[in-house]
Amino acid sequence: YAPTRCAAAQTSTEQGVLPPCHHHEAVHDPQLVPCTCPLFSCPWEGHLEVVVSHLRQTHRINILQGAEIVFLATDMHLPAPTDWIIMHSCLGHQFLLVLRKQEKYEGHPQFFATMMLIGTPTQADNFTYRLELNRNQRRLKWEATPRSVLECVDSVISDGDCLVLNTSLAQLFSDNGSLAIGIAITTSKVHNAEDEM
Amino acid sequence: YAPTRCAAAQTSTEQGVLPPCHHHEAVHDPQLVPCTCPLFSCPWEGHLEVVVSHLRQTHRINILQGAEIVFLATDMHLPAPTDWIIMHSCLGHQFLLVLRKQEKYEGHPQFFATMMLIGTPTQADNFTYRLELNRNQRRLKWEATPRSVLECVDSVISDGDCLVLNTSLAQLFSDNGSLAIGIAITTSKVHNAEDEM
Repeated sequence: YAPTRCAAAQTSTEQGVLPPCHHHEAVHDPQLVPCTCPLFSCPWEGHLEVVVSHLRQTHRINILQGAEIVFLATDMHLPAPTDWIIMHSCLGHQFLLVLRKQEKYEGHPQFFATMMLIGTPTQADNFTYRLELNRNQRRLKWEATPRSVLECVDSVISDGDCLVLNTSLAQLFSDNGSLAIGIAITTSKVHNAEDEM
Repeated sequence: YAPTRCAAAQTSTEQGVLPPCHHHEAVHDPQLVPCTCPLFSCPWEGHLEVVVSHLRQTHRINILQGAEIVFLATDMHLPAPTDWIIMHSCLGHQFLLVLRKQEKYEGHPQFFATMMLIGTPTQADNFTYRLELNRNQRRLKWEATPRSVLECVDSVISDGDCLVLNTSLAQLFSDNGSLAIGIAITTSKVHNAEDEM
């Protein structure tokens, strides 16, 4: 596994247009999605509708069901780069949680967590995801709109537009080397978030 | 302003024992507290009861009142190291919010935010503080037990045991260079936080 780079992948990802970051160089059928599992350099590509079964069957990614779930990421001590992946089935859609340990600054691994909808960016805008850590009298919550798997998880993480944890905080939230991440998905309402503060 | 260092300051801070990190080298009356304002190398020291009036009068630190307040930190573009400080009067106590911009990794400034009780560590254990950022369809909440001003804010920040923001996330949460931080203090109940997840 080697991290891919895709600084220019933020545009033209609506309606299945392929970002230039996923293991492929050739021009593609815009209806096809490359394998979205960041763990593997996988040559597979297919339509959005069959991404879930590919991830499940080929990469053995588990699916957790329910409005609120807890994902237990084990062996947090593993050296960077390492990814933890789970699918979350909820509200009639499947979401992909990616937790990545990466050394953005050499010698200082950090943890980055984000959720992607296995669907289009337009569909993704209808949802809000929440990641929650809760341990040792500390609680950290991150809420945001999920990105689409048609966008690039690498750019989300390199931008830092996700839940970011340094190693010492990850240890405070871990139990025996495992990090329990509470995950909740809701449908987003049209409102001005600032009004709630 | 030059950041002070106090890696060994985490012990013996109960009941007014002075940590070795605050601008002073001599042995102290354990009832005296040095100036807790991290903005200034201030030679002042005094009892806990007069810290608030010292911060207010000498350092012009404002006090905001109320269970839930919003602190607007302006000019987030200022170069590191920079501190933003406010006092928060709530539940019969005064708390100190410290927001610090610091380059832990050279060339990569980060923002660190924590709350300290102007009181003893035992008193601090009775409270929970929450810092909340809310903008651009993103929300970040950090909840923890406040530290006592008898402990060292520098060690809290160097440990990363606080709200940590990279620059890009700080920009997403900022409006016109200002960061609105929602602050709430509650009395903590004796409970197992993990049970709530």
